[in-house]
Amino acid sequence: MSRLDSFIRRLEAQRACLGLAAAMIRALPGPVLELGLGNGRTYDHLRELLPEREIFVFEREVNAHPDCVPDAAHLILGDVRATLPQAYGWLPGPVALAHSDVGTGDAARNADLAAWLADALPPLLAPGAWVVSDQPLRSPALVAQPLPAGIDPERYFVYNHRAKSSGDDRPKV
Amino acid sequence: MSRLDSFIRRLEAQRACLGLAAAMIRALPGPVLELGLGNGRTYDHLRELLPEREIFVFEREVNAHPDCVPDAAHLILGDVRATLPQAYGWLPGPVALAHSDVGTGDAARNADLAAWLADALPPLLAPGAWVVSDQPLRSPALVAQPLPAGIDPERYFVYNHRAKSSGDDRPKV
Repeated sequence: MSRLDSFIRRLEAQRACLGLAAAMIRALPGPVLELGLGNGRTYDHLRELLPEREIFVFEREVNAHPDCVPDAAHLILGDVRATLPQAYGWLPGPVALAHSDVGTGDAARNADLAAWLADALPPLLAPGAWVVSDQPLRSPALVAQPLPAGIDPERYFVYNHRAKSSGDDRPKV
Repeated sequence: MSRLDSFIRRLEAQRACLGLAAAMIRALPGPVLELGLGNGRTYDHLRELLPEREIFVFEREVNAHPDCVPDAAHLILGDVRATLPQAYGWLPGPVALAHSDVGTGDAARNADLAAWLADALPPLLAPGAWVVSDQPLRSPALVAQPLPAGIDPERYFVYNHRAKSSGDDRPKV
């Protein structure tokens, strides 16, 4: 399979997983988090899928198409490791859906950030929230979900936040 | 349609058009030109589609995955406006297939480069050669071809080089 084939499959997987999660949270109130704006394509897709939701975007440095940049109230600039833990204090409520696409070409860095996210993200999530991620997130609070039909395993990752919290994922601050 | 949808359609169109052209040149000898290496995805796809062909890649500055960089004999670095006209002198024969993906976010620049390419490319092509392009190429030497099934018009462009040359497209140097 060429890199073009592989890239198309990744984007199709991303779109299918976002579509699944958006459908699954229909009855679950709460804002949406987009971790990594990039060129803004998935942010644009999320706001089309979920026009009624507040979407908060975390990005180190904006490099997106001007049409795909959220307003200042929904754009949190800086290192996600610094900004995400603070979100617990200002988010309007527990998060219904989080999409994380923060991978780079650096596999070690990706694994490191994914391990951090797997701990940092669950405290922000509503019970029953959905998480869509380009990296595997290993956490007892996140239950891996089957991917949509036709999507290869490991192309993208979908999790459901445990409906009943044991309290383990409360913020440690 | 979101930018994610649109981007997936563009890549699918690109892949379908490359597949069509690669099938159509099966009986036509000659090298392949890739104008714009970018991240190397379509170069990787072309060499998978056409493993027996020489592929010459023109790129201003290499920024591709290391696995997708051609050897020095097949990588022509520099401004394509300077390097492409010289190719007439050193190519091993008339070109069977050219793929041009040189567009940027700058529409005026794209139109300008496409107009230049529409004149500069035909002299290098074999009669009956195929051209696949991200930009429309308007030249009496290039006959627009129907796109593969399911591909929206204007997403990508496919041309066939007139089988009989009137001589109009001989290089002017």
